[in-house]
Amino acid sequence: MMRKDIQFDSQGRLRHFLTTEGLSRQTLTEILDHAENFASVINKPVKKAPLLRGKTIANLFFEASTRTRTTFELAAKRLSADVININIQTSATKKGESLLDMLRNLEAMHCDMFIVRHMQSGAAHFIAEHVAPHISVINAGDGSHAHPTQAMLDMFTIRRHKPDFTALRVAIIGDIMHSRVARSQIHALNILGVPDVRVIGPHTLIPPQAEHLGVHVFHQMEQGLRDVDVVITLRLQRERMEGALLPSEDEYFNSYGLTPEKLALARNDAIVMHPGPINRGVEIESTVADGPQSVILEQVTNGLAVRMAVMSLILGRGNKSDSEASQ
Amino acid sequence: MMRKDIQFDSQGRLRHFLTTEGLSRQTLTEILDHAENFASVINKPVKKAPLLRGKTIANLFFEASTRTRTTFELAAKRLSADVININIQTSATKKGESLLDMLRNLEAMHCDMFIVRHMQSGAAHFIAEHVAPHISVINAGDGSHAHPTQAMLDMFTIRRHKPDFTALRVAIIGDIMHSRVARSQIHALNILGVPDVRVIGPHTLIPPQAEHLGVHVFHQMEQGLRDVDVVITLRLQRERMEGALLPSEDEYFNSYGLTPEKLALARNDAIVMHPGPINRGVEIESTVADGPQSVILEQVTNGLAVRMAVMSLILGRGNKSDSEASQ
Amino acid sequence: MMRKDIQFDSQGRLRHFLTTEGLSRQTLTEILDHAENFASVINKPVKKAPLLRGKTIANLFFEASTRTRTTFELAAKRLSADVININIQTSATKKGESLLDMLRNLEAMHCDMFIVRHMQSGAAHFIAEHVAPHISVINAGDGSHAHPTQAMLDMFTIRRHKPDFTALRVAIIGDIMHSRVARSQIHALNILGVPDVRVIGPHTLIPPQAEHLGVHVFHQMEQGLRDVDVVITLRLQRERMEGALLPSEDEYFNSYGLTPEKLALARNDAIVMHPGPINRGVEIESTVADGPQSVILEQVTNGLAVRMAVMSLILGRGNKSDSEASQ
Repeated sequence: MMRKDIQFDSQGRLRHFLTTEGLSRQTLTEILDHAENFASVINKPVKKAPLLRGKTIANLFFEASTRTRTTFELAAKRLSADVININIQTSATKKGESLLDMLRNLEAMHCDMFIVRHMQSGAAHFIAEHVAPHISVINAGDGSHAHPTQAMLDMFTIRRHKPDFTALRVAIIGDIMHSRVARSQIHALNILGVPDVRVIGPHTLIPPQAEHLGVHVFHQMEQGLRDVDVVITLRLQRERMEGALLPSEDEYFNSYGLTPEKLALARNDAIVMHPGPINRGVEIESTVADGPQSVILEQVTNGLAVRMAVMSLILGRGNKSDSEASQ
Repeated sequence: MMRKDIQFDSQGRLRHFLTTEGLSRQTLTEILDHAENFASVINKPVKKAPLLRGKTIANLFFEASTRTRTTFELAAKRLSADVININIQTSATKKGESLLDMLRNLEAMHCDMFIVRHMQSGAAHFIAEHVAPHISVINAGDGSHAHPTQAMLDMFTIRRHKPDFTALRVAIIGDIMHSRVARSQIHALNILGVPDVRVIGPHTLIPPQAEHLGVHVFHQMEQGLRDVDVVITLRLQRERMEGALLPSEDEYFNSYGLTPEKLALARNDAIVMHPGPINRGVEIESTVADGPQSVILEQVTNGLAVRMAVMSLILGRGNKSDSEASQ
Repeated sequence: MMRKDIQFDSQGRLRHFLTTEGLSRQTLTEILDHAENFASVINKPVKKAPLLRGKTIANLFFEASTRTRTTFELAAKRLSADVININIQTSATKKGESLLDMLRNLEAMHCDMFIVRHMQSGAAHFIAEHVAPHISVINAGDGSHAHPTQAMLDMFTIRRHKPDFTALRVAIIGDIMHSRVARSQIHALNILGVPDVRVIGPHTLIPPQAEHLGVHVFHQMEQGLRDVDVVITLRLQRERMEGALLPSEDEYFNSYGLTPEKLALARNDAIVMHPGPINRGVEIESTVADGPQSVILEQVTNGLAVRMAVMSLILGRGNKSDSEASQ
């Protein structure tokens, strides 16, 4: 089965991982199933798998993010890959080298994969469109567009608690408009068959015609949270306040901060998620973030397994077919 | 034998290494003996041991220190561990994430050990009190409190030259008041049975009631250095000058700088030590720092062996007991 | 055969790699031949060789260069060495530690090799003269003096396209005066027997008495490029403009920028080289840089193989003789 999506190679296998949008349920399920293997590796005393030995993975972070870079670096090292961290601020782009020339150079050094974080939407796609055939690109967050490994670790976390996606109500609370995390989650939830995906937030932070994304829009927590199985709170970007999109942190917390009282509107066994880092007392109260329904730290652990799964699905498969080809 | 010290696990085995204070002579001797093994590994052409393969060690340096970070990184790599350097200045704490949330996240990524340097006394203890059960903490220097691996590499260096601690006179010269190195050395020397531990410095840089630490206090080099076997000079923190605790570098050098003439007061076979980096011509003259009695560079080499010993005692033992448990 | 050159040990084997000047054709050819082995390793799916396992290589970059540091780091990791990146700006030299004290400390940590980049000519030699006997130094660029691994990767690239050095005309275009790359290339080309080495540039950027270096000097592209087999363009350092050595980028491009028209003066099968990063439209037009005669990206790939060759010739030989000695 041939596909035109840039994310797939000519044989229909995943080559880049740029967005959850447009992927099949089969592809997402394959990633989730593969991640289950790594979830068990992580708990062993020796957390190493030799799958990507001899592969080189370059972290290209145009936007600083210690947490995300660290999880990708750990995931790569636990797969025995070599990791190069390129600090874009101090790199040759300062000397007037263009982005494409920098990519050409990394390609020529026989890197195998670029992990790209960039403040501009579309940057990872742009890079994927321009890299050499032997390079794969993983989008580690681009502007307000997509953050697909975050979405997949969220799906993995949900599935571990609520195995049947087709029976779920999921609410995402906060700044849907600017959130690459929300966008990637919404696509993934729809692909995986969740029948009721809700977004909750003030009018200024919900994109117009959000329903076209496959969600139900709510502006009040009281309606939006009722009977949901999964509550996802988003990080409030404080710079939105300056842009006059929001009145104040206090007012936001009053309306949309997740408190035990508001959480009680959801199902008793609802889980609470957050992509981190948390603004305690802004989008979520500490008693909820640290409470029995919270799976926030599980998300972090699952992030390693899911990133190991995506990296090895993309790069490890190459290895296998190479050795098969040489037999 | 059960212990309440946070540094030990429920079976009385070393779990964290935060301070030399309160440890037993047996524990310190075990570390020194274990380090002898690594001192020989370091001199082999292939300086690798697979003891910590699959373990992840995170360097959390809240206070910059290339030298100390490098020795811990090298020690970990030579034990085949994966090392993650977290630059705290650029990490999510800037985004308002609390220290504890950052620790929770690193724990969730299944790190095994945190190497912590912090400008505040007690920071490593605070972190050790709050980490998950699978995490060990090594204090790489906290404020003016403790720097236990530095003290142990100093003990290791002393023992290689003067094997019987119970027959030694040791003098520590300089800013005892603010020195975490001196504090950890004094505890270790007392625990190991050194009968005559001396501190030498101006009144402003010796803590009041220093005798309670188990030292003899001297304000004159002429008396303090007489017949000692080991001379430890401390780095003069130049910022003390601004605090009016010291008149000038010149005057300090005249009174407390280690010159060949002053060193002649000690025993002929006395060794000269310094934790580095050296202020040449301030606390020590170059002819002494580079002279035949100096073991300053041996200290650096021994630092690797001692850090490998502490890391592997703490983490390697876990491995062994895991494999024993599974038999 | 004993040699006095600091680059060789007492048995005449390469110990440091500081400059191509004064080396023998045999030595350069040995490096090129050795690099051929690694050029094939790089193309394998598992790009690892265990040659330098247990060796520690420290990148000492006093002058920032992400690209060069990355290639050395990748080369070392693909040889299975441990790599330490020392950020000189944040290191203890800020605390007043001298360069030599910093080197002594790295030696004491049993590093095996220093990769040194420095803005001052002669810095790598100075360090090589002062390191302990077990340390080797590779010059990764010092001021306007030398950049020998760059020159050797260029020789490697030339030889792959034009195997007989003794039949070549090679032209180097640009700022010869300030270019460590040009200086190292000129020495290497002469040593390898190239009968016609040319430099082309304005009077202000050609050193006086350049002929003594073994080159023919041209100030016009029309004469200099005629019938050459290899065209090397140099990066124009824009700060030269401020120094009034050059009128403007436009004027420089008009006179010395490599265009298809000017390239047509060279032989039809001439190759075009550039050490990177490129100033497109200043020293070279994009159609040439990306055109069929360009081997610029091959240079980057070959840089890895050549650096692996130099590192393993220097450090791997030590390993072998150690194991031979122990038999």
